Amino acid sequence: MQIELINTGSELLLGRVLNTHQQWIGRRLADLGYEVARQIAVPDTGDAIRQAVAEALSRSDLIITTGGLGPTSDDRTRDLIAELLNRSLTENIDVMRHITGFFKRRNRPMPDSVKVQALIPEGAKVLMNQCGMAPGLAMTDSSFGNKKRFLLMLPGPPSELRPMFDQQALPWLQDDVFRPVGFACRTLRSTGIGESRVEEQLRERLDHLVEQGLEIGYCARKGEVDVRIIARGDGAEALVAKAIDATRELFGRSIYGEDDDCLEEVIVRILTDAGKTLTVAESCTGGYLAHRLTNVPGASKVFDSGLVTYSNEAKMRLLGVLSKTLEEHGAVSEATAGEMADGARQKAGTDYAISVTGIAGPTGGTAEKPVGTAFIGVATRESTTVLKCFNPVERESFKHMTSQQAFEMLRRELLRGGG
Amino acid sequence: MQIELINTGSELLLGRVLNTHQQWIGRRLADLGYEVARQIAVPDTGDAIRQAVAEALSRSDLIITTGGLGPTSDDRTRDLIAELLNRSLTENIDVMRHITGFFKRRNRPMPDSVKVQALIPEGAKVLMNQCGMAPGLAMTDSSFGNKKRFLLMLPGPPSELRPMFDQQALPWLQDDVFRPVGFACRTLRSTGIGESRVEEQLRERLDHLVEQGLEIGYCARKGEVDVRIIARGDGAEALVAKAIDATRELFGRSIYGEDDDCLEEVIVRILTDAGKTLTVAESCTGGYLAHRLTNVPGASKVFDSGLVTYSNEAKMRLLGVLSKTLEEHGAVSEATAGEMADGARQKAGTDYAISVTGIAGPTGGTAEKPVGTAFIGVATRESTTVLKCFNPVERESFKHMTSQQAFEMLRRELLRGGG
Repeated sequence: MQIELINTGSELLLGRVLNTHQQWIGRRLADLGYEVARQIAVPDTGDAIRQAVAEALSRSDLIITTGGLGPTSDDRTRDLIAELLNRSLTENIDVMRHITGFFKRRNRPMPDSVKVQALIPEGAKVLMNQCGMAPGLAMTDSSFGNKKRFLLMLPGPPSELRPMFDQQALPWLQDDVFRPVGFACRTLRSTGIGESRVEEQLRERLDHLVEQGLEIGYCARKGEVDVRIIARGDGAEALVAKAIDATRELFGRSIYGEDDDCLEEVIVRILTDAGKTLTVAESCTGGYLAHRLTNVPGASKVFDSGLVTYSNEAKMRLLGVLSKTLEEHGAVSEATAGEMADGARQKAGTDYAISVTGIAGPTGGTAEKPVGTAFIGVATRESTTVLKCFNPVERESFKHMTSQQAFEMLRRELLRGGG
Repeated sequence: MQIELINTGSELLLGRVLNTHQQWIGRRLADLGYEVARQIAVPDTGDAIRQAVAEALSRSDLIITTGGLGPTSDDRTRDLIAELLNRSLTENIDVMRHITGFFKRRNRPMPDSVKVQALIPEGAKVLMNQCGMAPGLAMTDSSFGNKKRFLLMLPGPPSELRPMFDQQALPWLQDDVFRPVGFACRTLRSTGIGESRVEEQLRERLDHLVEQGLEIGYCARKGEVDVRIIARGDGAEALVAKAIDATRELFGRSIYGEDDDCLEEVIVRILTDAGKTLTVAESCTGGYLAHRLTNVPGASKVFDSGLVTYSNEAKMRLLGVLSKTLEEHGAVSEATAGEMADGARQKAGTDYAISVTGIAGPTGGTAEKPVGTAFIGVATRESTTVLKCFNPVERESFKHMTSQQAFEMLRRELLRGGG
C-alpha cells in the first residue's frame, strides 16, 4: 500500500510556517503499520496542486492532502481535486448547519464567503470538523488507470487536523481502505552510546531474529539513539517482544525509555515513585533544565524551585559559591560546579541537585576552556559528582546537549539508588 | 528560476524527526528573492532518492538536497547522485584532513567508515563542514536534456546545514548560479493586533503602493502578525522603504522588530543600550523566560539571575512573598504576581523584574481560575504593574504564549522609558 502525503500552502514554501503535518501524520501512520512513501509540499497555485495530485494518483494507492479547504481565495484543494476527478460539488446541509452554528455560538455575523466550505464532491464521505469549520473529505476513485485509489483531504490547522485524523480518518482508513495485519512496532530510546556502536552490537545480537523477518531502524539525535523494532505477519508481537528483551539486556541502563518517553519525563517519574525531590542551579543552560522539567505535567510534586545564576555574584549570593573558588578556578570549573550543586541542594533542602556551568558561546572561550566546555554537577545527600563535557556546537544546541548529559547523569545516579 | 528541495531520510517519513529544513531554507531563499517551487521528502532507499532527483532534474533549474552525506549505510545521497550524473568519486585530501582533525581534537579513535565522507564527485565544489564532518557539495550539470542544472547537496543535521548554507552555499548561489535583481523584501513583526485588523488597515494605507507593484504577505502566529513587504524591478528598495515607513507610522509601538528579530532579542538590545538589568521570577513558565533570554548572545550583560519558584514555599523563601498573600489570594493571583516581581527585583538589585504565575494544566484549574489563567507582573524601581491573561491551550503553547505576553509587557514598559 503506497501512501503519498501532499501538503499545500505557499506559506510552507516561503518558510513562513513550519510544516508539522509531515512528522505528526507520518508517525501516527508508522505506528499502525502504514508507511508514507513520499511527502510533497506545493504552493497554492492551481497548476502546482493539480500536477502533484495527478502524479500521486498515477503511482500511489492512498493520497492524503492537507490544507486548502478553508474559505479564502487561496483555498483551492477541494475544487481542484473535484475537477480532476470529474466530480460535481453539492452543498451539504449538515455541514452548512455546522458552519452556521459555528458563528452563532461565537455571536459573530457569518460572511457569505465561508459557505464554500459546505460544498462536497459527489460521493465523498464528510469528516465533520469538531474544532473548526471546513470538513475533511474521504473519497474512493477508479478513474485513474482503472486502479482503485483513495483520497483523504484534511484541513491545514493542526488543531483541526489532529483530532479529525484520530477520530474519523483513522477509522475510515482501517475499516474502509486497508488494515495492516499482524504489525508490531516498538521503539527503545538509548543514551550514552554512539549510533555506530548501537548498530554494530545489535546487528550481532539480533541477527537470528532479522532472519525471521525482524526489521530494525535507527535514529540518532544529539546524544541519543532510538532503536525502532518492527515485525509483520503471524507472531509479529512475539518477535518484537523477543527483540526488545534482547536489546534491553544488551544495553541495560543505557535504555532510558520506550516510544514517546523523554529523559525529563523519566526523571520526574523515577523521582515521583521514590518520593524524592530535585532542584537545579544553572549558569550556561540558563533555565533550560527547569523549562524541560516543568514541561512534564505533575513536575511540581518533585521540583520545588530552580536557580539561574548567570553572574558570579548570583552564584555566591544564591548558592553560596565561595569567592575564593571563583578566583582560583573560575566560574567554569569542576570546583564551581560542585559548590553550585551542593549549595543548591542544601538551600532548597531537596534530595538531589543538578548544576551546570559552561561556555555556550559564541564568545567567551579561552585556549584552556574553549567555547563548548561545560561542567555538570550532581549532588545527593551523601556525595557530589562533577563531569566535564565538551559540546562545541551553536548556542541552542549546546544548551540541549548539555541538558541531555545532565539529565542522563542524574538518571544514572537515581538508578544506583543513591541519595 | 525553478528551485526544488529534496529532503532525504526515512526518519522524516516515519515521523521520528521534524523536518525543519523546509522552513529554514525556504525562508532564507524567499528573503533573497528565490522561490522554492516544490519540496519533497523521500526515504533513504536508493530507488526513491534516484527517482526524486531524476524527476527534479527534468523540470527544475536548481535542486537542493539535504541529508545522506554521513558515514552510515543509510547515507546514500552522494553516491546515488554521482552515479546518476555519471561522475566518479575521488578522495579529497583537504576533507580527509578535516575528518582526521575532527577525531584528533575530540581525542577519539577514527573508525574506517567515516572516510567515505571524503569522497567527492568529479567537478563538485566542496563546502567544508565547520560544525561536523561531511562536506556539502555544489555541482553544475548539463547531462539532463542539455539544460544547465545546478545541484546543491547539504548535510542533514541543522547545526551543520545552517552555517554551511549561509557562509558557503548562498555565496555560490548568488555568484555562480543566479542573483535575482531588483528584489527587495523586508518583514515587520507586530504584536497585540489581530491579523484581520492588520490586513484591513494596511490595505487602505498601502493601496497606492500596491498599484505600483508592491506585494504584501501576512503570517499570523500566536499573538503575533508578520507583515512581509516585497517589490521587484527598478526602484524596488525605495518602494519597500516607503511601505515600511507607512506601516511603522500606522502601527507605532506594535511593531517590535524586523526580519529575524524576536522579542527576547529586542528586550536584551533595549536593556543593553540603556545599561539596565533584568531578573525574572517564574512559576508556571518554569524557566522558559530565562531560557529564552539566555538564548540571546550577550544576555549576560543585562541578565544576572532568574528564579523558578514552583512551590509556595520557594515563593516565600526566595522572593519574600507573604504567606498571608498566598493564603488570602492564592498562588495564582494579582497580589502574588506583584509581590513576586517586587521581591525578585529587590533581592537581585536589578532595574526591572518580570514575574509569572498561572495554571499551565492539564490539571489544577478551578471554576474561578480555569487552566490557562496567568498573572504577569512587571516591576520597575518606581512601580509594579500586573496583567491578567487567559491562554487556554496545551502546556507548552501556554508557556510560549504567556512568555510572549510577559516580554511584550516589559517591552512596552521599556519604551515608556520607565525605571
